[in-house]
Amino acid sequence: MSVTAAKGFTAAGITAGIKESGSPDLALVVNTGPRRSAAGVFTSNRVKAAPVLWSEQVLKSGEVTAVVLNSGGANACTGPKGFQDTHATAEKVADVLGTGAGEVAVCSTGLIGVLLPMDKLLPGVEAAAGQLSEHGGEKAAIAIKTTDTVHKTSVVTRDGWTVGGMAKGAGMLAPGLATMLVVITTDADLETEALDRALRAATRVTFDRVDSDGCMSTNDTVLLLSSGSSGVTPEYDAFAEAVRTVCDDLGQQLIRDAEGASKDIKVEVVNAATEDEAVQVGRTIARNNLLKCAIHGEDPNWGRVLSAIGTTDAAFEPDRLNVAINGVWVCKNGGVGEDRELVDMRYREVHIVADLAAGDAAATIWTNDLTADYVHENSAYSS
Amino acid sequence: MSVTAAKGFTAAGITAGIKESGSPDLALVVNTGPRRSAAGVFTSNRVKAAPVLWSEQVLKSGEVTAVVLNSGGANACTGPKGFQDTHATAEKVADVLGTGAGEVAVCSTGLIGVLLPMDKLLPGVEAAAGQLSEHGGEKAAIAIKTTDTVHKTSVVTRDGWTVGGMAKGAGMLAPGLATMLVVITTDADLETEALDRALRAATRVTFDRVDSDGCMSTNDTVLLLSSGSSGVTPEYDAFAEAVRTVCDDLGQQLIRDAEGASKDIKVEVVNAATEDEAVQVGRTIARNNLLKCAIHGEDPNWGRVLSAIGTTDAAFEPDRLNVAINGVWVCKNGGVGEDRELVDMRYREVHIVADLAAGDAAATIWTNDLTADYVHENSAYSS
Repeated sequence: MSVTAAKGFTAAGITAGIKESGSPDLALVVNTGPRRSAAGVFTSNRVKAAPVLWSEQVLKSGEVTAVVLNSGGANACTGPKGFQDTHATAEKVADVLGTGAGEVAVCSTGLIGVLLPMDKLLPGVEAAAGQLSEHGGEKAAIAIKTTDTVHKTSVVTRDGWTVGGMAKGAGMLAPGLATMLVVITTDADLETEALDRALRAATRVTFDRVDSDGCMSTNDTVLLLSSGSSGVTPEYDAFAEAVRTVCDDLGQQLIRDAEGASKDIKVEVVNAATEDEAVQVGRTIARNNLLKCAIHGEDPNWGRVLSAIGTTDAAFEPDRLNVAINGVWVCKNGGVGEDRELVDMRYREVHIVADLAAGDAAATIWTNDLTADYVHENSAYSS
Repeated sequence: MSVTAAKGFTAAGITAGIKESGSPDLALVVNTGPRRSAAGVFTSNRVKAAPVLWSEQVLKSGEVTAVVLNSGGANACTGPKGFQDTHATAEKVADVLGTGAGEVAVCSTGLIGVLLPMDKLLPGVEAAAGQLSEHGGEKAAIAIKTTDTVHKTSVVTRDGWTVGGMAKGAGMLAPGLATMLVVITTDADLETEALDRALRAATRVTFDRVDSDGCMSTNDTVLLLSSGSSGVTPEYDAFAEAVRTVCDDLGQQLIRDAEGASKDIKVEVVNAATEDEAVQVGRTIARNNLLKCAIHGEDPNWGRVLSAIGTTDAAFEPDRLNVAINGVWVCKNGGVGEDRELVDMRYREVHIVADLAAGDAAATIWTNDLTADYVHENSAYSS
C-alpha cells in the first residue's frame, strides 16, 4: 500500500536503465490534491547531494506536487553539472505533469561521485508518468531499493484518514547512512506547519535514533505530503502519533535489513541526567566497533559498554554504572554483576540497558552488529 | 634492546600463569638510578582501570623505581577488590626490590571485568625479580603482548645518551584502544618536568594520532623513566626529538600490527583552518567504517571521504574540497577529479590527502582498514 494507501496519491516504479542490473530504479509519487502541503527533513551532512540542495529549496514553499526518486546513483559530489541534472529532472516531471518544477522534490540514492545517465533518466520520467496509479505504491517502494534486500512500507489508518509511507536504506537520518530515503503520504487535511511539526517530532525519536554504522549520508531525505482528500482534519496529537508510528515502523524495517547485520541491538540508556546525554551515550555505545563485534559473536562483553560510556561527557560516576544484556545485570556498580553465562544471545534482537544512575531521562538507540558480511558488502560496493 | 637499551635499567619477562595459554604474561622494569624521575600519560577514558588510577597517583610524585606490567587481564571494572589487587601488586614489587609501593607503577592489559589471579601474579613478581637483567628488555616486551602478533621495541642513541622503549597494543592512546601500554626509558639526566614536557609533546603528535578502530581503552598508559646514568643532560629540543622519534616508531608498529588489518591508512589533512580542525577531520575520516571497508576492497571510494568530512564542523566549503588517494586527485573542487582507475591500491600502505582549502594547518592520523578478520578476532576475544 505504501505511499498510495492514503487517498489523493498516485505512484509508479519502473526500470529506466540507470542501474546496470536492469532492476527497477525510478519512482514517481504524485499528490493529486486537493491540498499539496508538504514538510521535509534532510541530512545534516554539510556535503549535501544535488537533489538535497534542490529539494530543500522546494520544501521552503511548503507545497509539493510530485516526488521523483532514483536509485542507481546518488548525484552527490557531482558539481554544477549534478545540480543541473537534478534541475532538469524536476523540469521534466513538471512538464509531463503540467505543474511547476518548484513543486517537484527530487531524491537520489546510490554511489557518490558519479553523474546520472540523463539519457535514461529523462525518458524514464515519461515512462513512469504513464504508469501512475492509485495502486502504484508498492512498485515505487521497490524502485528505490539499492542494497536493500526487501522493500519497506508502512500504513496506519485512523478515523477516516490514513498515513502511509515507503523507505529505503540501511541506517539513519541525522547522522544518516547509505542514503535513507522516506516518503510518507496522508490524506488528512493539514497545513504545512502541522506536517512539519509532526514530522520533526517523529524523526527525532525514530530515524534519528537508528544508527546502523555511524556513517552519515549526503542524501538522506524524509518527506511528508498531505493531499487533504479525506476531508478530515484530525487533532494534532492523533496525527503526530500516526506519523510517529509509521516512522518507527519504517525505522525498524531499516535496522532489520541493515547491510550484513545478523543482530538488531536495542541500546536503552536509562537514568541519565538529560535526554540529550542519554542519546549521546546511546549513540556512543551503538558505534563501538569492538562491542558490535562482540555482539556478533554472542559474547556479553559488558566491559566494552563501560569503556564506550567512559568516552562521553555525560553525567555519571564510574562506580555507579549498571549494565544489563538481555535482562541479566552483568555489570553492577561499575564492576562484575550477575553471571554472564546466564545471558542468552541466540536470538536476532539483543537488548542492552545502560543505567547511568544520574537522573531520570532515557533514550533508545537502535543499531546492528558488525559482521564479516558488512565488510564484504561495503568493500565491494562500487567495484 | 627495548627498555634496557638505556643504561641504568633492568627488566624481566616471565610466565606467571595469568594467561591460560602459558605464554609470558608478567614484565618488570626497574630503574637502578641514580635518578628516578618519571612522567606518565594515561587514557582519557572516564572509566579507568584500577592500575591506571593507581599509577596516576604514583606519577604525581614524579619518581618511579619500577613498573610491573601484566597481560592476561585488564583489571578494569573490577571495583574495590580490583584496586586492592593493584595495590597488593605494587606492595609486592616494593617488597622484593626494597623500595616503597608509592614508587611502583602498575599496568594491566587483557579482558575487562575479570579479577586477576593474585595467587599466580604475586609469586610471578618474585620470579620476575629473580630474573632482572640489563638484557631483559626483549623478554619484557614479549610478556606484555595480548593479541599482538609481534613485540614492539624502539631505540635511538644520541651523543652519549639513549632513549628506548617497548609497546603493546593495536591502537591508540587518547582516545585509545585495546589497551596500549608503553614504557620508555632513558639514561639522559633529566628532571621530571623536562620528561613530562617531552612526553606530552611527543604523544600529542604520535600515539594520539594513531586511531585503529576509534575505541578508547580503560588502561592506556605511556611512561617515560630517566635513570640519569649517562651523566649527560641533553638540550631539551634534542631530547624531545629523540622521545618523539621513539614514540613515532612504536606508534607505527602498533598500526602495522593492528587486529585483523590488511592496510595501514595515512590520512593527511592539509590546508585546514587550524591544527585542531585538521585532527578532527582526520579522525572522522579515519573512523568511517564505510571508507575503511572500501579501502579493504582496494576501492578508491572518495565519496566516503567527502561524506565523512561533511559531518565535521571544521571550516571548509563543499565545492572547494580536494581528495587524493595514493597520489591521484580523484576529487577536485568537491566533484569528480582524475580517473579513479589510475589509483594503485595493491600495497599495504594507503595515503589519503584531504585538502580543506581553508587555511594552512595540517595533521596526519593513522588508521587501518576494516576487515572480516577484525570482526572475527573481536567477536571471539572473550569467549
